[in-house]
Amino acid sequence: MITHISPVGSMELLSQLEVDRLKATASSDLYRLYRNCSLAVLNSGSHTDNSKELLEKHKSFDVNVMRRERGIKLELINPPKHAFVDGRIIRGIQEHMFAVLRDIVYVNMHVQQRNDINLTSATHITNYIFSILRNAQMLHSGEDPNIVVCWGGHSINPVEYQYTREVGQELGLRELNICTGCGPGAMEGPMKGAAIGHAQQRYSNSRFLGMTEPSIIAAEPPNPIVNELVIFPDIEKRLEGFIRVGHGIIIFPGGAGTAEELLYILGILMHPENADQPMPLVLTGPKESEPYFRTLDAFIKDTLGTEAQKHYHIIIDDPEKVAQVMKASMPLIKEHRLATGDAYSFNWSLKIPPEFQLPFEPNHDSMSTLDLHTNQRPEHLAASLRRAFSGIVAGNVKEDGIREIERKGPFKINGDIALMKRMDKLLKNFVEQQRMKLPGTQYEPCYEIITAPTNGK
Amino acid sequence: MITHISPVGSMELLSQLEVDRLKATASSDLYRLYRNCSLAVLNSGSHTDNSKELLEKHKSFDVNVMRRERGIKLELINPPKHAFVDGRIIRGIQEHMFAVLRDIVYVNMHVQQRNDINLTSATHITNYIFSILRNAQMLHSGEDPNIVVCWGGHSINPVEYQYTREVGQELGLRELNICTGCGPGAMEGPMKGAAIGHAQQRYSNSRFLGMTEPSIIAAEPPNPIVNELVIFPDIEKRLEGFIRVGHGIIIFPGGAGTAEELLYILGILMHPENADQPMPLVLTGPKESEPYFRTLDAFIKDTLGTEAQKHYHIIIDDPEKVAQVMKASMPLIKEHRLATGDAYSFNWSLKIPPEFQLPFEPNHDSMSTLDLHTNQRPEHLAASLRRAFSGIVAGNVKEDGIREIERKGPFKINGDIALMKRMDKLLKNFVEQQRMKLPGTQYEPCYEIITAPTNGK
Amino acid sequence: MITHISPVGSMELLSQLEVDRLKATASSDLYRLYRNCSLAVLNSGSHTDNSKELLEKHKSFDVNVMRRERGIKLELINPPKHAFVDGRIIRGIQEHMFAVLRDIVYVNMHVQQRNDINLTSATHITNYIFSILRNAQMLHSGEDPNIVVCWGGHSINPVEYQYTREVGQELGLRELNICTGCGPGAMEGPMKGAAIGHAQQRYSNSRFLGMTEPSIIAAEPPNPIVNELVIFPDIEKRLEGFIRVGHGIIIFPGGAGTAEELLYILGILMHPENADQPMPLVLTGPKESEPYFRTLDAFIKDTLGTEAQKHYHIIIDDPEKVAQVMKASMPLIKEHRLATGDAYSFNWSLKIPPEFQLPFEPNHDSMSTLDLHTNQRPEHLAASLRRAFSGIVAGNVKEDGIREIERKGPFKINGDIALMKRMDKLLKNFVEQQRMKLPGTQYEPCYEIITAPTNGK
Amino acid sequence: MITHISPVGSMELLSQLEVDRLKATASSDLYRLYRNCSLAVLNSGSHTDNSKELLEKHKSFDVNVMRRERGIKLELINPPKHAFVDGRIIRGIQEHMFAVLRDIVYVNMHVQQRNDINLTSATHITNYIFSILRNAQMLHSGEDPNIVVCWGGHSINPVEYQYTREVGQELGLRELNICTGCGPGAMEGPMKGAAIGHAQQRYSNSRFLGMTEPSIIAAEPPNPIVNELVIFPDIEKRLEGFIRVGHGIIIFPGGAGTAEELLYILGILMHPENADQPMPLVLTGPKESEPYFRTLDAFIKDTLGTEAQKHYHIIIDDPEKVAQVMKASMPLIKEHRLATGDAYSFNWSLKIPPEFQLPFEPNHDSMSTLDLHTNQRPEHLAASLRRAFSGIVAGNVKEDGIREIERKGPFKINGDIALMKRMDKLLKNFVEQQRMKLPGTQYEPCYEIITAPTNGK
Repeated sequence: MITHISPVGSMELLSQLEVDRLKATASSDLYRLYRNCSLAVLNSGSHTDNSKELLEKHKSFDVNVMRRERGIKLELINPPKHAFVDGRIIRGIQEHMFAVLRDIVYVNMHVQQRNDINLTSATHITNYIFSILRNAQMLHSGEDPNIVVCWGGHSINPVEYQYTREVGQELGLRELNICTGCGPGAMEGPMKGAAIGHAQQRYSNSRFLGMTEPSIIAAEPPNPIVNELVIFPDIEKRLEGFIRVGHGIIIFPGGAGTAEELLYILGILMHPENADQPMPLVLTGPKESEPYFRTLDAFIKDTLGTEAQKHYHIIIDDPEKVAQVMKASMPLIKEHRLATGDAYSFNWSLKIPPEFQLPFEPNHDSMSTLDLHTNQRPEHLAASLRRAFSGIVAGNVKEDGIREIERKGPFKINGDIALMKRMDKLLKNFVEQQRMKLPGTQYEPCYEIITAPTNGK
Repeated sequence: MITHISPVGSMELLSQLEVDRLKATASSDLYRLYRNCSLAVLNSGSHTDNSKELLEKHKSFDVNVMRRERGIKLELINPPKHAFVDGRIIRGIQEHMFAVLRDIVYVNMHVQQRNDINLTSATHITNYIFSILRNAQMLHSGEDPNIVVCWGGHSINPVEYQYTREVGQELGLRELNICTGCGPGAMEGPMKGAAIGHAQQRYSNSRFLGMTEPSIIAAEPPNPIVNELVIFPDIEKRLEGFIRVGHGIIIFPGGAGTAEELLYILGILMHPENADQPMPLVLTGPKESEPYFRTLDAFIKDTLGTEAQKHYHIIIDDPEKVAQVMKASMPLIKEHRLATGDAYSFNWSLKIPPEFQLPFEPNHDSMSTLDLHTNQRPEHLAASLRRAFSGIVAGNVKEDGIREIERKGPFKINGDIALMKRMDKLLKNFVEQQRMKLPGTQYEPCYEIITAPTNGK
Repeated sequence: MITHISPVGSMELLSQLEVDRLKATASSDLYRLYRNCSLAVLNSGSHTDNSKELLEKHKSFDVNVMRRERGIKLELINPPKHAFVDGRIIRGIQEHMFAVLRDIVYVNMHVQQRNDINLTSATHITNYIFSILRNAQMLHSGEDPNIVVCWGGHSINPVEYQYTREVGQELGLRELNICTGCGPGAMEGPMKGAAIGHAQQRYSNSRFLGMTEPSIIAAEPPNPIVNELVIFPDIEKRLEGFIRVGHGIIIFPGGAGTAEELLYILGILMHPENADQPMPLVLTGPKESEPYFRTLDAFIKDTLGTEAQKHYHIIIDDPEKVAQVMKASMPLIKEHRLATGDAYSFNWSLKIPPEFQLPFEPNHDSMSTLDLHTNQRPEHLAASLRRAFSGIVAGNVKEDGIREIERKGPFKINGDIALMKRMDKLLKNFVEQQRMKLPGTQYEPCYEIITAPTNGK
Repeated sequence: MITHISPVGSMELLSQLEVDRLKATASSDLYRLYRNCSLAVLNSGSHTDNSKELLEKHKSFDVNVMRRERGIKLELINPPKHAFVDGRIIRGIQEHMFAVLRDIVYVNMHVQQRNDINLTSATHITNYIFSILRNAQMLHSGEDPNIVVCWGGHSINPVEYQYTREVGQELGLRELNICTGCGPGAMEGPMKGAAIGHAQQRYSNSRFLGMTEPSIIAAEPPNPIVNELVIFPDIEKRLEGFIRVGHGIIIFPGGAGTAEELLYILGILMHPENADQPMPLVLTGPKESEPYFRTLDAFIKDTLGTEAQKHYHIIIDDPEKVAQVMKASMPLIKEHRLATGDAYSFNWSLKIPPEFQLPFEPNHDSMSTLDLHTNQRPEHLAASLRRAFSGIVAGNVKEDGIREIERKGPFKINGDIALMKRMDKLLKNFVEQQRMKLPGTQYEPCYEIITAPTNGK
């Protein structure tokens, strides 16, 4: 089956050179990246979170960029059926197809061809993220702070899912917008809820921001309701994107990825230079999820200390209150930005230390040498723990990670014994609650926590 | 508590005379009507379907129209809390407040003051309905047929509710709009679903039409997602409104009101002059509701005959197919309107015989003298049965009906014994399935079906 | 030649009854009125100001209303060519065609069928005007005061015309909107200028209000740039429309009609109840027009007294200052309306005495019995003088007036000798300056001023 | 006087790095360029076409870019008064200020930092122009061909000016958009006329494209009515911009710049590879300008031959016909683009030979060595003549050119004697008709045509 689709959204035009380069590279890494992201986007609504599986299932899929009188067109060969309604592509997915193209062209043809950008400099990285977001037209300078980042698992149970919708509706009724990692579960529910809340308020500036990156997009394809999608080059850029764009953060129940996100934001909020940053952080879930949060809270206390706990509130079973906390913070954020001369749409002044900003590539080597000891500043420990969970996510759902695990067996993670035991307990908890992978599959851990002293140590 | 709200939506201006008349009549029937409809609208989201209860609960509520420099304002005294989010009225409800004002002013001050309108003439009635809809800006002449009327109970179970959402989403994905009686349950689910479908398609012309009338509005307050609300003067005008504006009809499970609606549309579609009207009519529900539809189908067969059955399809547990049937009909309707020179936005050519068009006022007398015998044309029987169910709805949830029943006991309904037995069975079924009233209350029938020969007969 | 046009603008739908009535009356006065106004609108851009001539020239023109699937259509038979560009009707004219239909249907079918409206009551008249404007969607309740009424001749010289454009541009640069009698000359120039000023300011809420009435529309067909057109039933309603909607008034050079307008507004502003009404009134023209204004000013002083002169400023050759005066008044008007609770979009509180509000029908009898004596309150004299000039306009350019004059010779106007001499001088001035009729024709006065004592007196 | 202005239009955001670089360079060439272009834009409406004069007059002017919470702001120190209305900057000018910033940042920080762009390659140059236009959001892929380029003098007489307005109105009535070099005179009139035509047609997609470059912008500041402004890096990019974006070209009377434009387009249209390009080219003016066009026509015939004459029509005194010719070409252009797969918004397939595409820097040396001989292909001669006129424009109105002339005296232009005589005659003609400079100044030629054999030759 061959289909042609026209550009919609903020990307309409490519120059001849850009089209040529994308074609020239049909066998290249760049093209493979582009094709796989496109496939992931088209796969929205399917029920798998295994990137490798997805790619293998759709081997015959292909996508070509063609120049046409009204701009460009995409030719899709054997696209997944879910993306179509009665033979016509869902408009939201169509937009996402061009967001993928836009960001891949921008990152790989514009930015990476510039000889004045140094991607190990903190300033340059942040400016780079800004440029990607600006090119995606995601920075709206005329708007007051109103973006709530929602983090949480892609695999949550129906009660939790319904709860995320209710929180979303309360946020929507308060005319707040939503930003998530744009997959299913806790990344989808708040948007659906907010869509209803916005409709009840006749709020027409509905923004459902999705932030993803090539290695996760296949496992967490963006729901079509996402109306602004950006594909960052890697997970660290994506995490930075969330916290520079978002004005408040809600964490719903989730697995390793959610733990990664919590550790990331805590590590940053604990940095002394961020002491006066008003950034509401709420952990919330339905009554049934209370134990989950108690466990997570204990883990934070035991590893990062009580100081870390001061940076978040846990609110159980009260969607209205969650939304009120977020809403009430917005004027404070506005005031703070005004006072510091910082932008409403991009938090330039937030300090992100290098250990959170520079890319971490998980593999057996890097995973086994993480500095997981308690005799360091809590922010540093948070950074290392963040990397550990990031590696577990990769082993669970990312293509490269899965291949690595298949080849060499589980990642070995070691460090202080007490810390390892806590980590092991937390992860077992996630496994039991089916938070690591979509239900219906038997979870095979991609990691091994060394909870006993080893010879070498 | 006193609040002031400003006009939003299609009604912004009143003349001095109009304001004066509305004030002058503060103690009058007109004012009482206005106040009660306003209260009903503000009561959206509350959990009662008993109009009388609602009115009694909010005795201290009052509303005043005030002329202001930017048009008019409404002063609300002790409004129900549900209508507000953090002290600010929900914008959808605010619009509904002014829709109530608009329609009450229009019907009572403009139309009823005209000496060239005769409300017993079929032509005049239809023109009257047209005028009300035009004044409400509900007739969009530039649009192709795309309005699906969804009927069904205000009291349905969670499985059915979820199903109505799914049907709504499939309709929304096909860029169809929704028109309902605008209360909760099956009147709300399809709109919420369609809102998500529309968002996924970036469909910005979302229309969620609500049609109500003063005696039912309190029992079925419009959900704020309704973005076009009209208040007709009575149930017969409202039913005519549905079928002149709608292009297809879906019937979900429901109680007496739903039966009324089904009988109404069948009686009209069976009229010989409507033989070539393309008007898709689908009865649908989840797997669990299959018995419900079998019962209803049998009732129709036994009372109106197999000819009546040809006018509808029953589709079980297949939201996609329901939406496809509706979508596929739209080009046929367009063609038919083009061929007959009829408007897309208002079906002028549909024949509505007087027995369906003229108001029926249910009371003990009129209910006991309904012509419920099988020795008449099926359309006529349908008309009488429609009135019977209409009376039961009144006795269940409408203020006047409830008072009548309180004073004089249940309506007595009699007719052919066999017919009475079938009716009795159907109604018992509704009662058992909690379709007559919201769950949580013990249902006390407001009617008595005479299933044995009486002396007087 | 037969053409069909579709509705655009604020009128899209007619009911069957309305269409039927308009057809039924094809030979009636109502239909004739409708046809003639339509012809006038189509005649925009032609170079005649003689209504009778126009009607006689286009005897074969006809217009039919037809109901169609997307609402209604108009069938035009032998329409004037000017209205078309390469065979397609100019969109502005198309809108005007439907404004004519809208207002004629509204006035004649809705309002005049109401038995609760008394058109000799001041309150009812004002409410009637409000209703017509509301139905035309000309009252925008969300806007701050920003409407400047521009009065002046339809026949002005090129220097004056260019000046009206410049004033218009300065008004436009200050984001003010324009309301005129909507013919050529001083009614067109300010709109064209303001269109440029608005474009320079990217002001997208450009409002070019045209107010006319059936007897003048043929002589002063609305320029297509008018984007909101209303047809009042008669000249007095139109004058009231101007001053209830406008927030400031500019008077450019003109002839009898302009004199009528000046006398009208002065008579009203001089009324004691209007003492605190902030209503800027500026008489302005280029250097070359200074003598014109000196003459007019002298006439006012001599007839209504120095008190009257206090109500206006004369500004010569300074478009920027004119615009600044208008702009500076807007906050005062806003404040006044806020203080009095009056609407921004409609000046309810302005007192218009009956002698200015009730229709005056000019004919030989009424013209000869005007109370043109100086021994009365100046407002009353202003009212009589207003009528005298109104009659002269009718004799000059209105169909009925021209026929009357053809049949019975010029109107005889008499009164105090001194007053008559002043009036005669003023009118002679107008004639010399070619302000009474478009240049190129020899002006034949339609009046005779009796400047010598007659026997009967 | 210090004023701050906020971004409007398509440029709102700068990254920290971009702001820093612009500041760092405050004393640099880049900053000087930015400041001077900003000053030129603010100077809109002033009456000078001498760039040097302007710059010297406003020595105290300065502009600073400042980062602010809602994006950025510009601080203006001692800006020209013309740009303000009652102390508030004209919105059109405000947009232009940010267009300047946008293009200077884009060209100098983005494109010029890329190591994959080679500005001597034809493909790269065209892609570069495309990128600039895309970044300026000037390429609207969803639109049918509708852009008419209007060329002509900045110094034309009132009759010619009025004529350009009338042509503009006829174009506007046909819903065509206008692209010009965006200065006064023939670059302004068509836009003002089209604004009225668009208003009459309620055409809301009015596009008034202005294309300029740093060395000419001060002499021809963009009128605020220009609603899309782009600043190309040099005159050759600007000329290429015109013909890649425009769908038809109209040439009004003008001086050396207009001759340059005519020679440019003729040289390109005569290229064999452009033989099938549908590109209507009309030379037009009022009756009074007929001799002008006859002279120009004769010059073309005498220099480039009768073949060249086939590429244009001369239409005298017929605005309607000019517009009809343009309108009629649009479907042909659409067809051609469809057939060749070329974009509607950017004519990729037009061949521009290097002699027209590569920058020509006029100075005494380059001007004296132009290859002005008739023994070459007419396109090549056209290219050399184009450069000669380009140099004269520089000497007349551009800052660098004026300085050069002041220092070293007039450019010496020589070549075939017969050709030189024709050129001399044409230029004398321009001088007599005051087309070289704004009236009111005594024109001092910046060139000397060598019409007699010199020793060296």
